[in-house]
Amino acid sequence: MSLVRGIYDPSSEVQGASVAATIIMVTSHDSAQVLGMTFEAKFANTPTFKYFVGVNILASAYSLIVLFFPTKKMLGRILLITDILMTLLLDSSISACLAIAQVGKKGNTHAGWLPICGQVPKFCDRVTGSLIAGFAAAILYFLLLLFSFHNVLNLYTLKA
Amino acid sequence: MSLVRGIYDPSSEVQGASVAATIIMVTSHDSAQVLGMTFEAKFANTPTFKYFVGVNILASAYSLIVLFFPTKKMLGRILLITDILMTLLLDSSISACLAIAQVGKKGNTHAGWLPICGQVPKFCDRVTGSLIAGFAAAILYFLLLLFSFHNVLNLYTLKA
Repeated sequence: MSLVRGIYDPSSEVQGASVAATIIMVTSHDSAQVLGMTFEAKFANTPTFKYFVGVNILASAYSLIVLFFPTKKMLGRILLITDILMTLLLDSSISACLAIAQVGKKGNTHAGWLPICGQVPKFCDRVTGSLIAGFAAAILYFLLLLFSFHNVLNLYTLKA
Repeated sequence: MSLVRGIYDPSSEVQGASVAATIIMVTSHDSAQVLGMTFEAKFANTPTFKYFVGVNILASAYSLIVLFFPTKKMLGRILLITDILMTLLLDSSISACLAIAQVGKKGNTHAGWLPICGQVPKFCDRVTGSLIAGFAAAILYFLLLLFSFHNVLNLYTLKA
């Protein structure tokens, strides 16, 4: 819980969700024997998952840094812009991962891409867990953005 | 060009980019003969591309509706929230498509997903064109959001 933005805001919850998403994704690992060859599944094999981890590390670090910022009105406006950028980054990373996860789960018969979750279920389960945490982080970040808004311009009474 | 937000804003350019992205994506089509079987590539075979088209149609419609709104201070604040939501949606759709396009272009050897651009180059070229237009729309929308901000709270002089 942080009071940087003047009122209660969920930045530590965002941080928790981002840290969880990062850890679960980085530790996701499984291997399978297909036609005598060992088939290894890990997050680093997919550029999209690396992007996801990068963005979640950035979000965790940003939330931590903001905790130590002094509370000032002008800072509230700068926070608003950086909060929008972080929300966009988290939104972008979770969307990209969901698109890849959908192919991993269902495959795409038209492109000849087979689903891989049957072969590496443990990897798929962990990726799913990581995406749930990442999704929670993105939603919490959006709430955080609304809190920042509330602080800079009072939306309820419509007074700036 | 619209003056709804009080000053010049790029909403018609956003609309142009979104309409272009939609049209190029919907008309992207190619087929190839692989092992005697006809292999047909079109946007509707990929759920992510359908999501992209949906979001771009929504963005085009929203930009059109906003053109006919009266200019009011209170409306500026509502526009700010809806603009953030539209920016997030466009950001999400372009990110998801880029992730899928990356697999289509480079494949993913670890998952056994082969690149398809060698077989259906015309489809790939059109999808690339559509993604460029979609990316332009997302960037322009972000600028539009900054314009909305400028209108609601003057960021340069730091007066609300």
